Formats: sequence, C-alpha cells, structure tokens
Amino acid sequence: MYQYKDLFDFTKSIFLKMGCSTRDSEIIAEVFLAAELRGHASHGMIRIKDYYELWKGGRINVNPNVRVVHESPSTAVVDGDNAVGMIAAVKSMEIAIEKAKTAGTGWVATRNSNHFGIAGYYAMMALKHDMIGICLTNANPLVAPTFSISRMMGTNPIAVAIPAKTQPPLVADFATTPIARGKLAVAEKKGEKVAFGFVQDKTGNPSDDPAILKSGGSMLTLGGDRIHGSHKGYCLSALVDIFSAVLSGANFGPFVPPSVAYLPVLDKKVGEGTGHFFGAMRMDAFQPADEFKAKMDEWIETFRSAKPATGQDRVLIPGDPERESEERILKEGISLVPAIKDDLVKIAAALEIPFK
Amino acid sequence: MYQYKDLFDFTKSIFLKMGCSTRDSEIIAEVFLAAELRGHASHGMIRIKDYYELWKGGRINVNPNVRVVHESPSTAVVDGDNAVGMIAAVKSMEIAIEKAKTAGTGWVATRNSNHFGIAGYYAMMALKHDMIGICLTNANPLVAPTFSISRMMGTNPIAVAIPAKTQPPLVADFATTPIARGKLAVAEKKGEKVAFGFVQDKTGNPSDDPAILKSGGSMLTLGGDRIHGSHKGYCLSALVDIFSAVLSGANFGPFVPPSVAYLPVLDKKVGEGTGHFFGAMRMDAFQPADEFKAKMDEWIETFRSAKPATGQDRVLIPGDPERESEERILKEGISLVPAIKDDLVKIAAALEIPFK
Repeated sequence: MYQYKDLFDFTKSIFLKMGCSTRDSEIIAEVFLAAELRGHASHGMIRIKDYYELWKGGRINVNPNVRVVHESPSTAVVDGDNAVGMIAAVKSMEIAIEKAKTAGTGWVATRNSNHFGIAGYYAMMALKHDMIGICLTNANPLVAPTFSISRMMGTNPIAVAIPAKTQPPLVADFATTPIARGKLAVAEKKGEKVAFGFVQDKTGNPSDDPAILKSGGSMLTLGGDRIHGSHKGYCLSALVDIFSAVLSGANFGPFVPPSVAYLPVLDKKVGEGTGHFFGAMRMDAFQPADEFKAKMDEWIETFRSAKPATGQDRVLIPGDPERESEERILKEGISLVPAIKDDLVKIAAALEIPFK
Repeated sequence: MYQYKDLFDFTKSIFLKMGCSTRDSEIIAEVFLAAELRGHASHGMIRIKDYYELWKGGRINVNPNVRVVHESPSTAVVDGDNAVGMIAAVKSMEIAIEKAKTAGTGWVATRNSNHFGIAGYYAMMALKHDMIGICLTNANPLVAPTFSISRMMGTNPIAVAIPAKTQPPLVADFATTPIARGKLAVAEKKGEKVAFGFVQDKTGNPSDDPAILKSGGSMLTLGGDRIHGSHKGYCLSALVDIFSAVLSGANFGPFVPPSVAYLPVLDKKVGEGTGHFFGAMRMDAFQPADEFKAKMDEWIETFRSAKPATGQDRVLIPGDPERESEERILKEGISLVPAIKDDLVKIAAALEIPFK
C-alpha cells in the first residue's frame, strides 16, 4: 500500500524530470492521484507509462504556451500547444471560471491537447467558486455509431459537478459507452467473457469476447443496440465529439490522435490534437447561491429516500461511489498491481528517481 | 389524410377559442404540427385533448405574462406564468438567443411552465441565427433511478441542434430512457410484449409487460440495467431535471405536475410548475461561422461514410429520420388514427369549430 503523498511526490518528480515546471508537475500528479482516490484506477498511475512514452517519442510538449486564440464575453477557444492534457485542461477550466465571474457562464473549447485523465476533476474545479462545472472530451476512436462497424468515436465522457449546501456535491462523470475500455482489458486478462451489449464483431454481430477489438470489432454506444436506445448513446458521443473538437478546431471522430505511443501518429489530420470542452455556470446567475444549494440538498435528500428495489440496500446519488472510495483509499492507502508497479520502477530507474 | 395547413389552421382555431392570442395560437399550432411532421406523433395532435382538458379544468393560463425574473449577461430565469408550455418555451429560447448575440452564449432556465411538445423545435430555433441550440425539460415522474423502484424522474429529453453548411443541420432529440412512454401504450393496445430493459415491476424485477406502469411498475433509464450502464442514463435524467427545475425554481423529480387533466394536482410542491432549460451558442463566439459550418459538413460526411454493419444499408446522422419524415409527410399528408380524430371532432364541436 502506498500513501497518497508518496505517490503524489513520485508522480510530480517524474514530470519534473521530463521537463515540466513545478506547478505543472503538481497539477499532473494531482489529477492522476484524483483518479486513484476516486476509484478510477484505469485513469490513474497505470497511465503514467503512456505519457512517459509519448514524451520519449517527442509527441508531447512539456513547456507549452497554452493560450486563448478566440473569445467572446462568455466563451473562449484555447490552443493547448500540444501540452500534457491536464495542463491544457486546468488552464481552460480556469478561463471558463473567470468568464463566468463576469458573464454569468463561461464556455471554453480546447484544441491541440492530449489525454487529460478523469473529466470529473475539471468539472469539480468549479465547486469552490459556487459554480456548476462541466467537462467533455473526445478520445481515441473505438466506438461504432448505431448500424455501423466503423470505429468512429471514443468513449467520450461527460462530467458535471453541482454544488449543494450540507450534502456533498452531485458529481456525474461517465463515459458514453456502457462500460469503460479498461473493463474489457480486465476481463480479457482474467479469461472471462463479458455481457452482450458492450462490443460487436467486425461484421456487426453481438459479441461477448472482451478481446474482439483486436480482430476488427468495436465498442457499442450506451444503449447497446437500436432497440435499447443505442442511437441515443450515439447522439451523446457525437455531441461530445462535436463540442470538444469541431467548436475548438481539434481532430474529431476517427482522427483523434492515439493517447499511447505504441500506436503511430495518424496520417490524416482534420484539426489540432485532442479536443475538450469546459463549462462553468455561476449559481447566482440563476438564483441566490444559498437558495440554489439548499434546493440541491432537497433534491439529493429526495432521491436518497427513493425506495430501493428488492435486494438493494440503497439508492445512490451521482458521485456517491467516488466520494466513498476517496474516503476509504485516503485512509487505507493506494494499492498498485504488480504489472503497474514494475512499469513505474523501470521509469523511475530510467529517470533516476527513487521508487520502490 | 390531412394537409399541413388544414391541421395548422384547425389547431390555431382551438387555442384561439380557448382564449390564446393569435400569435400564441400560431406558435402552439406550429409546435404541434412540427411533432407530426418529424414523425413524433406522440407529441402531436394526440396531445391537443390533454391541453384542452387542462384548460377546461382551469389548470393552464391562456393569457400569461411570461417574464424574466433574474438575469446576468449570459443567463436568465424566466417565470412562465403557468402558460401553455410552447409559449413559455419560445419566449425563453428567444431570450437565450438574444443573450447569445451579445455574450456569445445565452442560457435560460424556465419555471412555472407546462408540457411543451417536442424539445427539438426550440433547439432548432437557434439554427437560423448561426447558433447551436439546446433544450432540456423535465416531465411527469415515471422513471426509477438505478437500484430503485420509485418513480422519480420523467423521460427528460435532451435536444441539440447544430448548423452545417451544405449538409442539413445535425439535430439530436431524444428521451433519456430507452424508449418513449408512448411506445409502451402502442404495444399495450396491440396486446404485444416489449423487450426487456424498458420497464420493471413494482419490486424491481425485469418485465416485458407494457402495462406494468398500471400495477406499480416503472420505466428504466437509458442503459436498462446496472451492467449495461443504467446509472449513466440515471445521471443524464438527473442532470436534465436539475438544470430544468433546480436552476429555475420549478418542481423537480417526483413533484413535476401532471401534463394530463385526469391526474390530480399533486399535494406537495417544491417549486413552480414544470421546468425547462434552453441554450444558444453563437458559432462565431468560437470560430468564424463559415469555418465552423464547413467543418460540420466534414464531420457529417465522415460519419455518413462509416461502414454499415451486415444487413444495414447506411449509417444515419442525428436528425436524418426526422428530416426525411418531414419531407415525406409534407408531400403525402398527415394521417390521424380514428381515436384521435374522434377526440378532435368532439373538441371541435364543443368549441364550435368546423372539423371533419
């Protein structure tokens, strides 16, 4: 078991060695560790290797000039200058929050960025400003539109954080596919099948093989099949892609660059890098913040008191599982599976950083 | 078969007789007919009876003072004064568009409204202003959160309309449940079962009975069950509810008032009427409108060229089915099933309007 501070310092030192500034290295470490704490280890320490390899391949800029290239009172387009995704994302969300302070809401579309970890982190940045935070991003194409077998979209997540008063904030943070890509990998390693409704084979037949992506298969959108509303999941993924990439001038759909170095840079570009979208909405642009937060308490308490189905002990509010995970892991420590630890030991040795 | 103009004039005359202004009656007729043309007859002429009965019951205001009660440069809260939903919604979307003209984006939360027909109509109002349009609304509680058997949410739709250049606009307009309520009613009338994943019985067991809502059952969120991501559908429905009702001060979740007169007014209120949420985003608040629209053409053409699965002839863009329906129905005319026609004949007789 590792303590939060140990892994934070270690992660920070990796990015410092790669040439990032102190502040940037701290931001990156904080987002990686937030993923670990919130129970999304698929976006945590396991990903450091990918960023390290991209840096070694000269595919990421550790001294970026993240800047506004277009704006209006409530909007901006940010060029991430090929930064580590977290750096482009934090700066973009800060701009959205600043815009909201004067305009009531702030909306930032970001291009020329890279994989940024968990979307929820950026949405939650708004909370301490008494604002609602929103974050979307596109991602590597793995997902087929309804009726198609072409991998056109990423698992394109949506994150929204909403402040409450005495209740914890409501934080929704979810991919627009039934499951995350990482869960397929876990099932494959265990030699298990997955439920139908997650993936299809290369001709579009339903499949329960978690390795099907390796033989031309694709992931399905939320809903799974047309009867169960996969076209609605397709709409959601498409909207996330358009807001993240078409509004910003990033690569959209099948042209989103790989977030791992073992996949080559794509031949065709339709924009710059990966795209994100951020929103910040001042509560008192709608009503006094205290009244809004008290009403959110009432909403949350109403939904918490919904009657559980037989066999269930309670009804959850979006964000409950992650918050409970955070409380538990901060106490118990963070565990790393041997394969991830081995990768980190190798990176530490290469960068001459102590790690065990 | 009826011609568009005949049903438009008839619908307009009904609302004129009910006391609506000429302009309001035209707006209402236009939204009803838009639902018919776009193939969403469940929100079309079949609903006129509900509005008529609510009016007879004194539960709707035909001479409303729809007004802004709170605002910032990019936001407003609108009080719908218990108007017919279309009237509150059109005014609110107009305000969002006006805000966007100066602030780049405009966001309006509306309370004290009623059922407003199809959400897509209001999102599409933004298109002719070179803006992206967004519309959300909450609705009568029929849907249970994941792990619950309580009806806490409506089918809470999301509509987004995005302009393109030579391609038709992309218009996503979908409920956050696998299917619309109306499809359950159709299956019930035909004596058919429905697929599993749409509804559950009163204890939370999966059900294929389209009439299960009458015996304590509930609808499921997009995703169907937890394994297939119903918690993501729950997040979506919850967000639509909070944006529509908590931001505006309307009734949320289980307290949304019925949109039909045969259900009594609820005892408990937590706000005013039904809530909606509207957004308008000026394209040139992000990049020159012409460049954005050309890029949307490229996005649409890329997705149209996705490879169809075996047995499918093409991959659709959100909005394709509705646009094709509109072209076809404008040519062929609008058909009304006998039961709906009978209702309209009775209303026409009561209001002394010619109809056959």
